[in-house]
Amino acid sequence: MEFFELKPVEDARRLFLTACAQVRPAAETVRLADALGRVTAAPVAAPADLPPFARTSVDGFAVRAADTFGASDGLPAYLKVTAEILMGEAPVLPLHAGQAQRISTGGALPDGADAVVMVEYTEALAEDEIGITRPVSPGENVMHKGEDARAGEVLLPAGHQVRAQELALLQSAGILQVDVIRRPTVAIISTGDELVDPEREPGPGQIRESNAAALTALARRDGAVPTYLGKAADTEEAVREMLQRGLTYDVILISGGSSVGTRDLTSKMIAELGEPGILVHGVKLKPGKPTILAVAQGKPVIGLPGHPVSAQVVYGLLVAPLLRQLQGLAAEPAFRPAVRARMTKNVASATGRTDCIRVRLRREGDEVWAEPVHGKSGLISTLVRADGLVTISSGKEGILAGEWVDVEVLV
Amino acid sequence: MEFFELKPVEDARRLFLTACAQVRPAAETVRLADALGRVTAAPVAAPADLPPFARTSVDGFAVRAADTFGASDGLPAYLKVTAEILMGEAPVLPLHAGQAQRISTGGALPDGADAVVMVEYTEALAEDEIGITRPVSPGENVMHKGEDARAGEVLLPAGHQVRAQELALLQSAGILQVDVIRRPTVAIISTGDELVDPEREPGPGQIRESNAAALTALARRDGAVPTYLGKAADTEEAVREMLQRGLTYDVILISGGSSVGTRDLTSKMIAELGEPGILVHGVKLKPGKPTILAVAQGKPVIGLPGHPVSAQVVYGLLVAPLLRQLQGLAAEPAFRPAVRARMTKNVASATGRTDCIRVRLRREGDEVWAEPVHGKSGLISTLVRADGLVTISSGKEGILAGEWVDVEVLV
Repeated sequence: MEFFELKPVEDARRLFLTACAQVRPAAETVRLADALGRVTAAPVAAPADLPPFARTSVDGFAVRAADTFGASDGLPAYLKVTAEILMGEAPVLPLHAGQAQRISTGGALPDGADAVVMVEYTEALAEDEIGITRPVSPGENVMHKGEDARAGEVLLPAGHQVRAQELALLQSAGILQVDVIRRPTVAIISTGDELVDPEREPGPGQIRESNAAALTALARRDGAVPTYLGKAADTEEAVREMLQRGLTYDVILISGGSSVGTRDLTSKMIAELGEPGILVHGVKLKPGKPTILAVAQGKPVIGLPGHPVSAQVVYGLLVAPLLRQLQGLAAEPAFRPAVRARMTKNVASATGRTDCIRVRLRREGDEVWAEPVHGKSGLISTLVRADGLVTISSGKEGILAGEWVDVEVLV
Repeated sequence: MEFFELKPVEDARRLFLTACAQVRPAAETVRLADALGRVTAAPVAAPADLPPFARTSVDGFAVRAADTFGASDGLPAYLKVTAEILMGEAPVLPLHAGQAQRISTGGALPDGADAVVMVEYTEALAEDEIGITRPVSPGENVMHKGEDARAGEVLLPAGHQVRAQELALLQSAGILQVDVIRRPTVAIISTGDELVDPEREPGPGQIRESNAAALTALARRDGAVPTYLGKAADTEEAVREMLQRGLTYDVILISGGSSVGTRDLTSKMIAELGEPGILVHGVKLKPGKPTILAVAQGKPVIGLPGHPVSAQVVYGLLVAPLLRQLQGLAAEPAFRPAVRARMTKNVASATGRTDCIRVRLRREGDEVWAEPVHGKSGLISTLVRADGLVTISSGKEGILAGEWVDVEVLV
């Protein structure tokens, strides 16, 4: 049997992601309504000023700020009301010194006005006269023409992930389709003669295939388009044929093959797929040691451990960053939200090895505590009981009881 | 004009969510593959033991642990190899004292075996004889029958949100459909005579509708099924007719109406919809003050401010918790991941008022700093520039420069 030359996770990831750096799915144009979570393939510029005219952000009176200087409750500034600006229409009259025009939030400022007095700071004196009891400065309560964006200004750079606010900004600019990076397609393959399709009743020595369901959900959540190709029998022909089918996708995830025999078979077939072939065979990771990272014919290929907990840990540490990179994002998010918690007990780790600890969270007063969920990595129920994962990086020898850790919440 | 009796956000939320506590969409049955993110409507129990037989978690030899006691490199325990267990098949022979059977990861233990010795701790002596150089204890490297779950055991309680690992667990139990809470349907309505449909070129005084795009994306992300009903003109008939259509959905979000006139019109029409009617009209929140929370004919109705930043802030504080509650989850997640950062400058807030501060994040050495993004709440570009939000709760008067805060990352 083959003994692995185990690589630290950080080295394995760097090596693999660098080898995949040239792999970039093409761009495609999508309707704005379908762009949430997608990543811009090119900068998006504003076709015109936003807003297209100066608008008020409050209800009140459009004025010249200079006319209000020194105004107070005791000594209001008196202005003549010459018009009311209707919503969705252009102001009819310009505004001259000594005048005010009634205006509602969002209304267009008339020519000559440079500020808006909130209605709360005015008093009606006659049908066409108001007193202003507080001064405004020029520009106060006004959203200037082009203040949200100037015509030609870059609204979104290339490589920007579209969130709800980006949808609103682009829509207000009339940009109703956008060029984004195509979602990477992912082929998911299971191996292992003990596996049966989930709708079947397992016979003696058999269990239902289940990793593909989890991997499909995770890849879809992370912006990819996964397809389960099925289960390959433990023969060279079956695995080779399945991998060949996988090469028509952007990424291949082949899971299972946790026994040495299947593992050797899988690694041999991956090695035969093409250059440069296997880059990493085994990582210093618990759980998740028997991981294969390869590139063949320009396609990333990842051999995931068969144990379900290991497969999900390896997915998070090595597959998710790849899928981000393939979508034009940084492999690791710049800022990763976490729950700060204190570990309830000592957890040992070997130096040089990365450990992923399943934890349950509980609140005690103002603090959150993380309780390790023990159990074999073949037991998926341990991950169902867990709220999150704590990663002990390779440079650390463990975590002491009471130590603060960042918990990645599993969603 | 009407002056609001402003309510603190926390009080408004509690009042509203309590009033909506009886509103529960029914359950529905979905295929397991469609269950990600859904919430179980009833407990799910294991129909049989998982795994259905004792399995090994390593490659090696099935043994009786007692036969290995005291084994060492210097004094191996010698065992006779009587069989090889094939993957996916039942063991053919029982295992007797003094015997071993070759087994691969995931293979079924033969009757009589109670542990597995890893192949690394064995030496082949002859075709049918091995030496064992390290003892194993009973149960070592074995996943017992029923260790993942016992027949009849509750795999998931009611109200449990399905993640990738739950999919794997249910699939391995052969549970291929699951009863979940139906997704709440959400009607989204815009108001404001200044708005035009996004495909149109705005005329003088007009702007494109854009809030609905953001609200649709947010509601879909949060598990609801949003439908944009369109734009209501600023007339009683138009708003009333649109709200009546909205009552065929589980929730109504009516946005815009930021000017007093439209706002009064909207609130009047909401009040006419039915009992109990408007619960909250105005919250002590910046941005987001002119918010309406109502229940009519058993349906939650939320009047969102027209300013896009305000609308999104109110969505996060008041709509998202409602949608969670309607799906059978706690309105607030028990543990909310965040980025810990230090504020770059003093930010003032009025006591009693909740402030939501847009921030950009940047890393400096080991620390993350949050820089406030200033700008009017009518400028959606400020939210595009922001990485996250910092909430200053009503009991706090502000944040000092250098103070640590929890940043909710906007996704």
